[in-house]
Amino acid sequence: MQQPTGWKQKLFTIIFEADTKAGRSFDLALLFFIVVSLVVVMLQSIPSVNARHGELLYSIEWIITILFTIEYILRMAVVNRPWKYVTSFYGIVDLLAILPTWFSLVFPFSHFLLAIRALRLIRVFRILKLSQFVHEGNSIVLAMKASARRIGIFLSFVLLLSVILGSLVYVAEAGDNERFSSIPQSIYWAIVTITTVGYGDISPVTVMGKFIASFVMLLGYAIIAVPTGIVTVELSKGLHKEEVKSQACPNCAAYGHDFDAKYCKFCGHQL
Amino acid sequence: MQQPTGWKQKLFTIIFEADTKAGRSFDLALLFFIVVSLVVVMLQSIPSVNARHGELLYSIEWIITILFTIEYILRMAVVNRPWKYVTSFYGIVDLLAILPTWFSLVFPFSHFLLAIRALRLIRVFRILKLSQFVHEGNSIVLAMKASARRIGIFLSFVLLLSVILGSLVYVAEAGDNERFSSIPQSIYWAIVTITTVGYGDISPVTVMGKFIASFVMLLGYAIIAVPTGIVTVELSKGLHKEEVKSQACPNCAAYGHDFDAKYCKFCGHQL
Amino acid sequence: MQQPTGWKQKLFTIIFEADTKAGRSFDLALLFFIVVSLVVVMLQSIPSVNARHGELLYSIEWIITILFTIEYILRMAVVNRPWKYVTSFYGIVDLLAILPTWFSLVFPFSHFLLAIRALRLIRVFRILKLSQFVHEGNSIVLAMKASARRIGIFLSFVLLLSVILGSLVYVAEAGDNERFSSIPQSIYWAIVTITTVGYGDISPVTVMGKFIASFVMLLGYAIIAVPTGIVTVELSKGLHKEEVKSQACPNCAAYGHDFDAKYCKFCGHQL
Amino acid sequence: MQQPTGWKQKLFTIIFEADTKAGRSFDLALLFFIVVSLVVVMLQSIPSVNARHGELLYSIEWIITILFTIEYILRMAVVNRPWKYVTSFYGIVDLLAILPTWFSLVFPFSHFLLAIRALRLIRVFRILKLSQFVHEGNSIVLAMKASARRIGIFLSFVLLLSVILGSLVYVAEAGDNERFSSIPQSIYWAIVTITTVGYGDISPVTVMGKFIASFVMLLGYAIIAVPTGIVTVELSKGLHKEEVKSQACPNCAAYGHDFDAKYCKFCGHQL
Repeated sequence: MQQPTGWKQKLFTIIFEADTKAGRSFDLALLFFIVVSLVVVMLQSIPSVNARHGELLYSIEWIITILFTIEYILRMAVVNRPWKYVTSFYGIVDLLAILPTWFSLVFPFSHFLLAIRALRLIRVFRILKLSQFVHEGNSIVLAMKASARRIGIFLSFVLLLSVILGSLVYVAEAGDNERFSSIPQSIYWAIVTITTVGYGDISPVTVMGKFIASFVMLLGYAIIAVPTGIVTVELSKGLHKEEVKSQACPNCAAYGHDFDAKYCKFCGHQL
Repeated sequence: MQQPTGWKQKLFTIIFEADTKAGRSFDLALLFFIVVSLVVVMLQSIPSVNARHGELLYSIEWIITILFTIEYILRMAVVNRPWKYVTSFYGIVDLLAILPTWFSLVFPFSHFLLAIRALRLIRVFRILKLSQFVHEGNSIVLAMKASARRIGIFLSFVLLLSVILGSLVYVAEAGDNERFSSIPQSIYWAIVTITTVGYGDISPVTVMGKFIASFVMLLGYAIIAVPTGIVTVELSKGLHKEEVKSQACPNCAAYGHDFDAKYCKFCGHQL
Repeated sequence: MQQPTGWKQKLFTIIFEADTKAGRSFDLALLFFIVVSLVVVMLQSIPSVNARHGELLYSIEWIITILFTIEYILRMAVVNRPWKYVTSFYGIVDLLAILPTWFSLVFPFSHFLLAIRALRLIRVFRILKLSQFVHEGNSIVLAMKASARRIGIFLSFVLLLSVILGSLVYVAEAGDNERFSSIPQSIYWAIVTITTVGYGDISPVTVMGKFIASFVMLLGYAIIAVPTGIVTVELSKGLHKEEVKSQACPNCAAYGHDFDAKYCKFCGHQL
Repeated sequence: MQQPTGWKQKLFTIIFEADTKAGRSFDLALLFFIVVSLVVVMLQSIPSVNARHGELLYSIEWIITILFTIEYILRMAVVNRPWKYVTSFYGIVDLLAILPTWFSLVFPFSHFLLAIRALRLIRVFRILKLSQFVHEGNSIVLAMKASARRIGIFLSFVLLLSVILGSLVYVAEAGDNERFSSIPQSIYWAIVTITTVGYGDISPVTVMGKFIASFVMLLGYAIIAVPTGIVTVELSKGLHKEEVKSQACPNCAAYGHDFDAKYCKFCGHQL
């Protein structure tokens, strides 16, 4: 990938990097505007505050949105492959951070979706080179990625259980308890119960319903163990990987040798 | 076990396998009908929807049930040992998927038990050869099977505790709190509390009741650790089994080589 | 310890052991009476049932209590050291199983404490030689015993936190929320929240109260990890102990050698 | 650091240490006053008790506060570097234990903050040389310190999620459910739900709201695994460090001997 030149090069350094003084100032300004923007959205949602300072908040929101829009266009302009940026995780977040305000011209409520701007904070963390934190965070993210498929399967299993147990309770309760008004509602109840959240807005009243509910709770209590086990194993794998030698084989340059290894496990050369 | 021949052989390949084009189409159709059937049952349970489209939904339910019944009979016809199929896990699920509709001719509410059809989705996943997922799922299932007995003992212990603590709270609350109307009701409360679900439909009001409740909560908070520990240990056992070759070095007879190792890491001899 | 002789010997075999036919019958009868007794106590607590069958239930309770009292006296009579039995875990449970009925002559409510008879089920399990289950259960009990002190410290820490955080929320809420009526009440709330039970009978309404509550919840969410970690580590220790050779040293008879050990680690003798 | 002499030396031994008889008596008196003080604060917060014994409780509170103030001044007087003590953890706790009463002359409610005196119990535990407990506690504290940064990152991530999911539910519910009155309120709901506390004071009523809520719950159920995994890995690290001697065999230079080993398990040579 070829580096941009001239003004593009300069702007790229300011906007995408944080090594120069200008780049650092840019990132701090960005951090400031994101936080202000989040506070504004929250204040707008409080009726009493919005009634008194509504116009001011509305103006600030539009100013920040226009600034963010300019920033988004600049980012597209200074990178060599704009499309790659637009379709990247950060590109999508940057777009989502400005769309709701524009959409609010048509759908008045959508501007509360601006809370999605909180995601932009991730970029700032990254750019400000809080590398220690990023390193730690990465090891968590890696463990979660590695266990994503297993946890996905586990959650599908929990959903399947919720469908079946929700229906069972519906059959038990529907006559006596108007809160269990339909199967989807009962599935919602089953999820609330199996995850041990337990709002109590819907709860069984019949003996059979309470019996099934007890079963659901004990089940939820027992199977919470599964995702925990998965992530723990994954994280401790990461730990053991750290315990691998940092030394490469002098013959075939392969990494990943155990600490007690004396010979390369790939080519047999002495380490 | 002898393979079925002629039309039985052909149908077997279509119904039980997914390698041929016909078999694949059959499985996709099955997947489609299961999902439609689940949606229909849910819609039927919503009074407003059922009032307007009740007859249509009722017809669809019966058409699908008849299709599933034919499928069930065909499955029995094409396998060599029908009884083995009928008593297998999938055979029982297939039967449970059609029984509620037939039973609903006698017990009107039972057709909501059709939600059990969700279990049929497991077969489809399996047949569609989502083998990666099945592999991951299997390792979870194995770990759960291996820990099933321990978790069973643990849950019996939790139940025993619930009986005793529920009765204690009953003695403390019964005079002042009509919600604790009987010991079974109090045991239900104890299960709700010890599993940290906490609906709040029943909660103690006396000082002694709150004291015991606090004890129950802290206990529940501490012993949730047990099933987690059991499953984690089981899963990490599976992990270690996966990770090391069973092959010894032909030169120095050392064990513990990684799967990707081609040379002994202790003496450098080719494995 | 000298074995009892004559009729004492015979009764001892029947009452305390389950190897003979008579002993087995005795244990099954015991199991039957415990379960009947538990069912009776539960039924007595349900007002509608007690109104109709109260006298019958009362009679059954007294018959079983008298039988259990005779059994208790016999147990004391046939063992060589009655005091050791009386002060043992099972001796105390056996006594607690009969006391509430006798006490109920004075304190009418105490007979609901009969639910403590559920504890007697442990003895029956043990006697019926469900040894597999007992073995599994033991490994859990050992891991819990080994982590008991750490979990105790952890729970003291949680209690200390609950006292401090409960008081903080009391200061924040007391003016605006009558549910936070006193500090002990607020500590109860803090325990309900930190253990993620969350009844909802007491919940903050002020902004500051909700802020502190959010902190308490996130804290509870993070520190639940501690007891789990403790038990997991303890259980996996147990696992590794299992992986110790069952072979004793032929020289010093010490156990506990690793599988890769060729020499006794205590005396240096070849294994 | 130079040791204080004369009366300072004497007082130092009494106040800061527990080896002499006087020091031990001092610590027991301290323990007694802390507990009395906590009980008094709690009783003061119960309206009915305060109405009857208010003046007595008020007097006790002031007596204890003056005693603690004298103790605080003495501690400053007898140590060589008073400033180091004042800024230490225990120094701050000791100060916080007396400030609220003095502040209550100006802000009447602040004296309930005296509950912070509970923290002083930590010092007493330490001084009373409950060393076994302290040792166990330390291993937990070390594991928590080691995982503090990761858990901090994890909690930031949970907060970020709560902001975004809370806003989403706000958009879904705001029209139909007055409980979701603003975005901060909805974020509070998201925290209550994702941590599986689930008060039920705020719960969704629209279909879309319940859908998002189900997602939040399943998410919370899955990611609770992360802090648990982190702490478990950290605790098991500590365990392995404890369990193997750092000493190598003087004959064959092999590592990994147990602490109780006297002979090398690989070559039989004395360690």
